[in-house]
Amino acid sequence: MSADAPAVVVRPATLDDWPQIWPVVRAVARAGDTYAYEPDLDEAEARAAWLVAPPRATAVAVSGHRLLGVATMGPNRPGPGGHVGTASFLVARNARGRGVGRLLAEHAVAWHREHGYRGIQFNAVVETNTAAVRLWSDLGFVVVGTVPGAFRHPTRGYVGLHVMYLPLDR
Amino acid sequence: MSADAPAVVVRPATLDDWPQIWPVVRAVARAGDTYAYEPDLDEAEARAAWLVAPPRATAVAVSGHRLLGVATMGPNRPGPGGHVGTASFLVARNARGRGVGRLLAEHAVAWHREHGYRGIQFNAVVETNTAAVRLWSDLGFVVVGTVPGAFRHPTRGYVGLHVMYLPLDR
Repeated sequence: MSADAPAVVVRPATLDDWPQIWPVVRAVARAGDTYAYEPDLDEAEARAAWLVAPPRATAVAVSGHRLLGVATMGPNRPGPGGHVGTASFLVARNARGRGVGRLLAEHAVAWHREHGYRGIQFNAVVETNTAAVRLWSDLGFVVVGTVPGAFRHPTRGYVGLHVMYLPLDR
Repeated sequence: MSADAPAVVVRPATLDDWPQIWPVVRAVARAGDTYAYEPDLDEAEARAAWLVAPPRATAVAVSGHRLLGVATMGPNRPGPGGHVGTASFLVARNARGRGVGRLLAEHAVAWHREHGYRGIQFNAVVETNTAAVRLWSDLGFVVVGTVPGAFRHPTRGYVGLHVMYLPLDR
């Protein structure tokens, strides 16, 4: 972002954001190195996963009209598991390394806190995605366990998937 | 089961099994002590979760025409996560303690092995469900990690959810 680019703002997503979200989701599915998606992920399926309804929520990071990243948040499981949240994050390739992921993650943590969740669980953090693992660790998440070889990385072969957890003060 | 009850057989489920599966699923959802389901779980949602299509499969344990238990099996995640399987099991309340769960679990392990999976992951084993934890351990599953307090048990309060994993020889 140049010095005169509009500030990065995190706000609730609207339906109008989808045309900018979809290319980011599609690129991540095709790259196949950070999310367990089919490489030819269907747009309707992607839309259902990333534009979510209450009790879940979708937020976007934007600079002016330009979408930089997207996050979903909400319960990880129904019923007796509903007090623990989960979140997913995507940052556009050309917006990486600029703190967008951290802004979205801080938003998600604050959101879960405000909504009374007792903690946040990430179910499948690819262990070679060191930028993500470092960021979640910075925010206080700990690796609860690692399922060995559970993710087939396009260049690294079978790598582990971390389950990570952040307890929230209440 | 009385001595003259027909032998317990594990076979692929058919659509005709649903009327006997649904009361078992509904009872488990209402009990709320082993699965993270809404207590008023919707029948259509339950049917979609328990009568599954390839690449997943549903098996039932029956004695004659009487359904004793049900199991689903198949990939835990899509795309680059598809080589690790997962499975879910339910045993009818009045058929518990008779080895039905073990028969279904052995079937699921054999099924994943035959289909070339590299391992089987259980995502959320309630730690107070000691019969299940013991059975999975007997079959070689190990606790990869435990998400603290992630399940609200109706009498025990907040208890942990184990992530368990069994590597399969290939």
